[in-house]
Amino acid sequence: MNYRIGVDIGATKTKVLLITRAGRIVSKEKFLTDSFGKVEPIIDRAASVMEKMLKANGIKLRQIEWIGCGTAGQLDPETGYIDNSPNLQWFGVQFGRKFEKRLGRKIRLVNDVNAAAWGEFIYGAGRDYGKGCQNLVCVYVGSGIGGGIVCNGKLVEGATGTAGEIGHLIFREDGLRCDCGHRGCHEAYAGGVPMENRMRKMVRAGKGKIIKKMVKGDLSQINTRTIADAAQRGDKGAKLVWKDAVASLNVLCANLVSVFNPEVLVLGGGVVEGNPILVPTIRAYVKSHAVDYSASTAQVVKSRLANDAIALGAAAIIETGGCC
Amino acid sequence: MNYRIGVDIGATKTKVLLITRAGRIVSKEKFLTDSFGKVEPIIDRAASVMEKMLKANGIKLRQIEWIGCGTAGQLDPETGYIDNSPNLQWFGVQFGRKFEKRLGRKIRLVNDVNAAAWGEFIYGAGRDYGKGCQNLVCVYVGSGIGGGIVCNGKLVEGATGTAGEIGHLIFREDGLRCDCGHRGCHEAYAGGVPMENRMRKMVRAGKGKIIKKMVKGDLSQINTRTIADAAQRGDKGAKLVWKDAVASLNVLCANLVSVFNPEVLVLGGGVVEGNPILVPTIRAYVKSHAVDYSASTAQVVKSRLANDAIALGAAAIIETGGCC
Repeated sequence: MNYRIGVDIGATKTKVLLITRAGRIVSKEKFLTDSFGKVEPIIDRAASVMEKMLKANGIKLRQIEWIGCGTAGQLDPETGYIDNSPNLQWFGVQFGRKFEKRLGRKIRLVNDVNAAAWGEFIYGAGRDYGKGCQNLVCVYVGSGIGGGIVCNGKLVEGATGTAGEIGHLIFREDGLRCDCGHRGCHEAYAGGVPMENRMRKMVRAGKGKIIKKMVKGDLSQINTRTIADAAQRGDKGAKLVWKDAVASLNVLCANLVSVFNPEVLVLGGGVVEGNPILVPTIRAYVKSHAVDYSASTAQVVKSRLANDAIALGAAAIIETGGCC
Repeated sequence: MNYRIGVDIGATKTKVLLITRAGRIVSKEKFLTDSFGKVEPIIDRAASVMEKMLKANGIKLRQIEWIGCGTAGQLDPETGYIDNSPNLQWFGVQFGRKFEKRLGRKIRLVNDVNAAAWGEFIYGAGRDYGKGCQNLVCVYVGSGIGGGIVCNGKLVEGATGTAGEIGHLIFREDGLRCDCGHRGCHEAYAGGVPMENRMRKMVRAGKGKIIKKMVKGDLSQINTRTIADAAQRGDKGAKLVWKDAVASLNVLCANLVSVFNPEVLVLGGGVVEGNPILVPTIRAYVKSHAVDYSASTAQVVKSRLANDAIALGAAAIIETGGCC
């Protein structure tokens, strides 16, 4: 019982990790998640990959302590039921039961951001901190903004598994419209896709001449990094977009530190990886704007596990004990 | 071992409750907390009250399963050390140890708002909800704004016992100055004392003629209820103060529901008790502005225990298990 398996089913790729209990990666396989709308082909493919992986490493299925699977969407970790996962076009499917039937053993389904947070807690920033880390908050800024929370050493999933929806906390009442239908969410200001869309709109309205030159008129080339660069070069539109994004992330992280008083706040996701300035900027704001005791306690760090966080966390989700 | 004792040490009054394990109040005593700066007289008085209470009810100290003590301030629940409690003028005192020495048995010290939240969870709104309640958030709006949080059936205290400082979450960047030294905190908009001070300032600046008449020129008579009434009667200043306060509480509660996905959100404190309109107003906003799944799950209710919440929660704090 010294091994664990973690599966990360993303909209484009699915990853299977075979790891030791201590978190060392023994084997890693990826394949395209190319079956929109149906779960069976993905389940079958993931199961086959696992079986080959075990065989190649001379490991028996009964030596696997735990199989966890992280995926995006609204799901019930208790039953493995996926209510909806728009990116994968899965709606109302008994994912967990089907996977278990195919494998002949129990698996645990978990929301992808929660899995990533748990991965950081067990094998990443939480482990680096040491045994004293019992409270950790993860802020992932990619296309959108997601959060994962550990309190008292346990994952916080909430009443229906939707805790941690930090991208849709209200940042500015009656602010920018968000894809969720509400106004003023943090995601509308600091999510990668909304930032890029806002920037493109501005360029079309003539408020982004510098960035337009930078991307040679090809607006599809605009990303958060070009926005940050253009802002530094004095582009008026880019300055506003970038300033709002930084303000939103600053306030979000300071507020999370004040509410949770965590040992560690982890920043991850494509926008954070692509803009190294964000971590020290947010760290400084948290120190000066969160509630004093919590501000001086919290370590604000970059994700340690990056792309492997979801699969690693799913593999380790057994350690949450009874709570999830 | 069928009884518990809870002590609530407030800035003006100290309350001692003797209860059954099920939460029935057997005996209640209050006395004035009239010893600013020193803990010994309060400890001695509370201990004497307990001893008399037990004697009067024919109960032995060994029949007391648990003694908990809730008080305001920055304290360490692990050691019973109070770093600072400005209202009581206690700074750097070994409160827990001194109390234990006087009583000859272990006690548990807990932050007052955390105690109140735990009281609601075990004996109040959480119990009413039933066994399914594992996540509960309390928002107390009195002179200031405090919060207590239960996740996965455990109290959330954070790394240094300062989790739940929801009054100092940033509501509006660069907004009104708060007593904490920062700007734009929810407390600066919706805390009772800041609201009253803001209103008085406005009256002095000529922007509160109706409320000035209502209190016959005696500005010390202004409270959150008169502000709400004056707003309804068309007082311009009062309308702004009340509108901002409601907006602040709406956003705060919607955000807490989106982050925690709780079964129950409890509203309590003097401002909530004095303005019954707040509960249905906030409930409606949460339903329409929090993240969908969490919004439809959360029950937004008024505190069930009101003034006894802290002492009841302190008495029941043993049930948090290992986490606090």
